[in-house]
Amino acid sequence: MPESTPVTVLAGGVGGAKLAEGFARVGDDLTVVVNTADDAQVYGLSISPDLDTVMYTLAGIANPDTGWGIAGDTVAVLDQLRRLGQDTWFTLGDADLATHVFRSDRLRRGVPLSMVTADLAAALGVRARLVPMTDDPVATLVDTPAGRFGFQEYFVARRHADTVTALTFDGVADSRPAPGVLEAVRDADVVAIAPSNPFVSVGPILAVPGVRDALATSGAWRVAVSPVIAGAALKGPAAQMLADLGHEVSALAVARLYAGLIDAMCIDERDRDLAPAIADLGLQVIVTNTVMGDGPDRERFARELLTGRDR
Amino acid sequence: MPESTPVTVLAGGVGGAKLAEGFARVGDDLTVVVNTADDAQVYGLSISPDLDTVMYTLAGIANPDTGWGIAGDTVAVLDQLRRLGQDTWFTLGDADLATHVFRSDRLRRGVPLSMVTADLAAALGVRARLVPMTDDPVATLVDTPAGRFGFQEYFVARRHADTVTALTFDGVADSRPAPGVLEAVRDADVVAIAPSNPFVSVGPILAVPGVRDALATSGAWRVAVSPVIAGAALKGPAAQMLADLGHEVSALAVARLYAGLIDAMCIDERDRDLAPAIADLGLQVIVTNTVMGDGPDRERFARELLTGRDR
Repeated sequence: MPESTPVTVLAGGVGGAKLAEGFARVGDDLTVVVNTADDAQVYGLSISPDLDTVMYTLAGIANPDTGWGIAGDTVAVLDQLRRLGQDTWFTLGDADLATHVFRSDRLRRGVPLSMVTADLAAALGVRARLVPMTDDPVATLVDTPAGRFGFQEYFVARRHADTVTALTFDGVADSRPAPGVLEAVRDADVVAIAPSNPFVSVGPILAVPGVRDALATSGAWRVAVSPVIAGAALKGPAAQMLADLGHEVSALAVARLYAGLIDAMCIDERDRDLAPAIADLGLQVIVTNTVMGDGPDRERFARELLTGRDR
Repeated sequence: MPESTPVTVLAGGVGGAKLAEGFARVGDDLTVVVNTADDAQVYGLSISPDLDTVMYTLAGIANPDTGWGIAGDTVAVLDQLRRLGQDTWFTLGDADLATHVFRSDRLRRGVPLSMVTADLAAALGVRARLVPMTDDPVATLVDTPAGRFGFQEYFVARRHADTVTALTFDGVADSRPAPGVLEAVRDADVVAIAPSNPFVSVGPILAVPGVRDALATSGAWRVAVSPVIAGAALKGPAAQMLADLGHEVSALAVARLYAGLIDAMCIDERDRDLAPAIADLGLQVIVTNTVMGDGPDRERFARELLTGRDR
């Protein structure tokens, strides 16, 4: 692949960040469209967990142990908030908090999230274009037998332990794609759907009016990477959500969710026996080690995906 | 003085904090009414410098070197804000920043500043009643030959180096005293005006509608402590402001500013020769060492003031 091949990644948090880093190490024309339906107000600050995870990863400052937050970060603000009687259910490191202070201030002054994100990414030396799916507020609401929760409450405070009965992306019907999103999906040579949660990470991106159509009609070679490996998710509640929402917990089920939008499905070697069924959906199947380790391993994976395209 | 003698202090920042701590060590019925006209939005956070200086001092966590901020505080958030390209002209420590995050969040949700302040003070173990002069927004604007500046810009960014030609307390005419302020001034046995800047610290408190009248007609013994000693201010621009605004730079000039509102004026030993002229204003004069050092020395000073009352 030439270094200037335009690649667009549709990304949630950690899985999206790893794949984005892989492509960033291969080429220099990368756009990452990131889910913002997990965004929330925490302690009065505007946090964008997926954007920040991708941004910190591409900036080379992500905490390698957690996948989110900044490496070596301290928690002096959080400790003091706790002393002030604040329920500190959501961990924010000090350097990470600077991102939220910076973002909150500008959003309140009317700067669109896409511009704030571009400024943050530039300041941190990120060369890829990092774009929120929309500048409009969208909020994932999770219905469970215990009631309806905002995503961060479901995910962090309740440790995604509830059965999910339905998902709502509040505000998405009225949202518009952020500047550059539709072009990035339409005009790229490669569009990769990251191994992020199909329901709550990729789902909201595709639900922004215009994005699904842009992907369905894109001239790009479109590949999705399964976040499910051998019946489990590497991270987060994807497997549980598949089960809760009536799907089989497998890469095949993920392929079915994306059928009509992609040309190829990338699955892990451990799921090799699913390849024929996925091929029966009319999809090219790429089988490889989909577990991305450090930077060079992420690059290895991105190159293998691209080899699939050239096949 | 019985421990339960009700004392009210009208306070700005560092000088007010020292006097308040002195009284807090003497008795247990202390109300501190604090200037909020220095309050500002910094990095999108609501800061109340004078309230925080008094609060941290009464909580025993103030930075003894600066008089403001929290002892031993770190600056990880500020360092990262700088990396993000933010002009970090206003230093905020990490633990200090927690106060501002806590306050900003609640103010935005409509909680009055007086309630937020009470919650913060209680969480930090402050037993005195700490009350902002008003819950309404008031902003000191400083006119100088270089233009008009917000107070923090004049004070911090421009290091109070400009000649002050006029002061405006924007919003004060429409402000109401915070709950308890008028009662604290009217009903105390002792009201002490701290050795704070008469123009920009005590001035705004007295400009809140009702406060000046409450002080003028209070049944309390009312004493003011001169922030000017031997023609200079211990801290800040009080001396320069006296000169800029056409006053003599002396404790006598301060006494003249407060005449009609106080019964007694406390001046430093070095200004002993001003005592007759101050007495000619109809004021009792207390002459002592007005430079307050550590906690026990602040208590010493508070006791000396009260001895003046009992004389």
